[in-house]
Amino acid sequence: MDALFDRHQPTLAAALKAAEVRGYWSAYPEIPSGKIYGESARDDGLASYNARLGRHFELPGHPATTQVGAEVSPFGATLGITYPAADAGMLITASQAAGSAWAAASVKTRIGICLEILARLNRLSFEMAHAVMHTTGQAFAMAFQAGGPHAQDRGLEAVAYAFAEMTRTPPQAVWNKPQGKGDAIILEKHWRIVPRGISLVIGCQTFPTWNSYPGLFASLSTGNTVIVKPHPGAILPLAITVSVIRQVLSEEGYAADIALLAADASGAEITRDLVENDAVSIVDYTGSSSFGEWVRKHAGSAQVYTEEAGVNSIVIAATDDFAGMCANVAFSLSLYSGQMCTAPQNIYVPKGGIQTNEGHKSFDDVATGIVAAIDDLLANPVRAAGVCGAIANAATVSRVEAARSLGRIIRDSAPIAAVEARTATPLILAVDAEQTDAHEEERFGPIAFVVGVADATAGIAQAVSLARQKGAITAALYDVHDGRIEAAVDAFAAAGVNLSINLTGGIFVNQSAAFSDFHVTGANPAGNASLTDTAFVANRFRTAMWRRPKTA
Amino acid sequence: MDALFDRHQPTLAAALKAAEVRGYWSAYPEIPSGKIYGESARDDGLASYNARLGRHFELPGHPATTQVGAEVSPFGATLGITYPAADAGMLITASQAAGSAWAAASVKTRIGICLEILARLNRLSFEMAHAVMHTTGQAFAMAFQAGGPHAQDRGLEAVAYAFAEMTRTPPQAVWNKPQGKGDAIILEKHWRIVPRGISLVIGCQTFPTWNSYPGLFASLSTGNTVIVKPHPGAILPLAITVSVIRQVLSEEGYAADIALLAADASGAEITRDLVENDAVSIVDYTGSSSFGEWVRKHAGSAQVYTEEAGVNSIVIAATDDFAGMCANVAFSLSLYSGQMCTAPQNIYVPKGGIQTNEGHKSFDDVATGIVAAIDDLLANPVRAAGVCGAIANAATVSRVEAARSLGRIIRDSAPIAAVEARTATPLILAVDAEQTDAHEEERFGPIAFVVGVADATAGIAQAVSLARQKGAITAALYDVHDGRIEAAVDAFAAAGVNLSINLTGGIFVNQSAAFSDFHVTGANPAGNASLTDTAFVANRFRTAMWRRPKTA
Repeated sequence: MDALFDRHQPTLAAALKAAEVRGYWSAYPEIPSGKIYGESARDDGLASYNARLGRHFELPGHPATTQVGAEVSPFGATLGITYPAADAGMLITASQAAGSAWAAASVKTRIGICLEILARLNRLSFEMAHAVMHTTGQAFAMAFQAGGPHAQDRGLEAVAYAFAEMTRTPPQAVWNKPQGKGDAIILEKHWRIVPRGISLVIGCQTFPTWNSYPGLFASLSTGNTVIVKPHPGAILPLAITVSVIRQVLSEEGYAADIALLAADASGAEITRDLVENDAVSIVDYTGSSSFGEWVRKHAGSAQVYTEEAGVNSIVIAATDDFAGMCANVAFSLSLYSGQMCTAPQNIYVPKGGIQTNEGHKSFDDVATGIVAAIDDLLANPVRAAGVCGAIANAATVSRVEAARSLGRIIRDSAPIAAVEARTATPLILAVDAEQTDAHEEERFGPIAFVVGVADATAGIAQAVSLARQKGAITAALYDVHDGRIEAAVDAFAAAGVNLSINLTGGIFVNQSAAFSDFHVTGANPAGNASLTDTAFVANRFRTAMWRRPKTA
Repeated sequence: MDALFDRHQPTLAAALKAAEVRGYWSAYPEIPSGKIYGESARDDGLASYNARLGRHFELPGHPATTQVGAEVSPFGATLGITYPAADAGMLITASQAAGSAWAAASVKTRIGICLEILARLNRLSFEMAHAVMHTTGQAFAMAFQAGGPHAQDRGLEAVAYAFAEMTRTPPQAVWNKPQGKGDAIILEKHWRIVPRGISLVIGCQTFPTWNSYPGLFASLSTGNTVIVKPHPGAILPLAITVSVIRQVLSEEGYAADIALLAADASGAEITRDLVENDAVSIVDYTGSSSFGEWVRKHAGSAQVYTEEAGVNSIVIAATDDFAGMCANVAFSLSLYSGQMCTAPQNIYVPKGGIQTNEGHKSFDDVATGIVAAIDDLLANPVRAAGVCGAIANAATVSRVEAARSLGRIIRDSAPIAAVEARTATPLILAVDAEQTDAHEEERFGPIAFVVGVADATAGIAQAVSLARQKGAITAALYDVHDGRIEAAVDAFAAAGVNLSINLTGGIFVNQSAAFSDFHVTGANPAGNASLTDTAFVANRFRTAMWRRPKTA
């Protein structure tokens, strides 16, 4: 009965250990190599993806009254895939009908099924890479990693935490209370996990799997049914995911409708109907702050976990590796054209310049150093395309154009030459600290501001204040003064921002590693939850007891 | 620096072990005995209580613009105590000012201080017993236990869970990611606990300490400041509590205002102002469902933990100890005159009667059996007063009177003879299952319905349905058929109700033991949280990281 649990138990044990130690660990290899995934995996994945195009995506038995689907790749092609679609009421009814057997399944059964789903998703990583690439605009290598193994690691992390929490209370105990000279009162007590009900996962366009898997697997493993609502522009990665979940559930004798796809059309989204439905007990949301606020206000008594938007900052106070710093910042600004929730937007630099290993550098020296590093990084169009990928949403291109008037352009955005895709390299603007209308708004995409501040301390204060006000997921600091570093550590922590200090080389502020980095703190407006901590899973189920006198 | 932690570490370790094993354990003796608490403890406690009467309750340094206080004992006397009082804005400002140093205190420092506070509260248990007795109407023995050691156990339980969650992530780790043939990327990472901010604890009149301590100590130990808002009729127990907290904080070099008392006057409560204030990040609420709904809707982005109201049921299907069952039910209905949130209200009995060890018993036999057991229990007025205590709120007496027309009176309520107090023994009404207007409303106080149902299965179904709709904290079942018991276990668990089966002798459905029973499941409208599970503490703080390249 628990064969899947037994099969995957070593992975679960390693994940639990990794989450405890928080060093580097990964269950699913991030290198898209035939040596790891099988020599034919790359070709097979592409073939599988191509076979999806221009057809209806079959989800056997899935409730549907119609078909939707209008995905267009940021790299140009129309996907031409349609998906089964139903209104919120029909999805809710189907989800409820599937719920009681899943709620009654044992912890080991559910955990085993979730681990098997993740293992199968891992084997589909090449197909998933194409699906993610052509819905998000991520370059292939990033789409493979972020859409495949890294997302699977985040899913596994949630499953591991869920397992730990569901097994924290023993299934039974004997309660033996002495009564002085009288007979002791002895009760047997039994506890069981009670899931909340229906869990709604609202995905985003840019990271459809990475941002959805934690909530999806946390809810599924704790016995809730899940309704996965993809962004209309990035349905395929989550359709593949739901397809695999339904396949494994069916094989194990459970109703496929425990996992449903809530595909819908842009302009006719069913998200609000789902959120407002009283039967939805959990909502995981990734997306804009404005809709996030709506979700939080209209979800009734449902538990709501959000990752919303923020404005991430870098403060440049001093450095003993000016070239390494510029290269590192350049990569962070260019990677996926600034479309990561962890990408920096504001770079605070003292107007009087900074001390570096190359001597004093003026404000303009620092700005031009970063610009030169970007130009160098993106000089080769093929390499540029591999770093920047494409722009997921046409609105982002318009936003870049509109932003050009917000400050002094020190690097203009441009399409990447010779690439058939909607592309835009970083726009870099120099502004003064007082121009808050320019740089204190979130401007999603390849838009960054080099902000002139009185001194480093003022830059830290402004970045921290902005994080408290608008939210921030990441911050970076370059400095060599221990006292100022310590003060910055305190200030960013108090504002709930994870801080990276003096990153150079092959590690970037944008990166968040499963089992080690908690993604989003939940302590500022960038989100109310963290991927993945105990709080993210512990309230997705409740514990009910029965007790009776113990007979000898 | 962590002397308090070291002193109390054995208690903490034992609490953690108890919460894991969930057998019987208690840190604070529940017997009001001089052998345990000191030969003079009883007299000293009474003297201390008496010394409070008719005076201003001093809280040195506490913000105040005026004084409030109009407590009247349900046993007759006017307490005549006034308390420092301020508006919500002044309390919030003082709480914020005290916050940063407390947030920066180490986990061990905060946990040590909380454990010291609990130890001192334990030594004040006799004084607290009088304070609880004369604000809630509990008889002395119950006031001692529920207001003192049992509440302290619940506080310790919260501290233990908080310690476990705050230490789950290591303070630091090394993240070493291999890079094939290249140099590994090595980061040092550091995590710290970030409290949410101000925590508001809204107490109730009937269990001012027991229901407040879990949220209070969970928030305080995780680094939040606390504002304790007592019911205007039961300020003294929480004023004593806040006084002890402030004393220990001051001794340890922290601002006393980390804990504030939000005393107010009936009809001029400041609760709404506090709940609606954006600076309040956590709200713990115990009270009516109607105000609970208001709190949940108006608390903004604050985390809200509630225990609201419900309708608890007993289903009598069969018994092999008819006398024991009747005596047990009689005590559950009589204890503190039904003013416990765990007290049963509805007793479902098949219209055709039940099988018992005394042969077949008709519906009326069962009803009169329970009535006779109550009459027997309460025959001696002194014993009756010891069981029933007094009625906390005059409105409850009116509710009993109004309820007399709701069904066939099979036992009338009456004052307890020869007791100087506002008392009322249980009113028992027989009704038919269809009279839902009568028995499916919560009727707080000594009011119970014996509800005639088609059969036991119908009774279980009706109790479960009612729990889902109106909430329930407890349920009891008397039965001898394994299959029906198993079905009831499943049904009540799915409705989020803790179920007690075949209780006879000295253990009652009303009772919930710290470290073993989770009080309220959070899975039905009786409350959204559980005292105390991981979910109750894990989201009261967040975790922030800083990381940098590790130098050799």
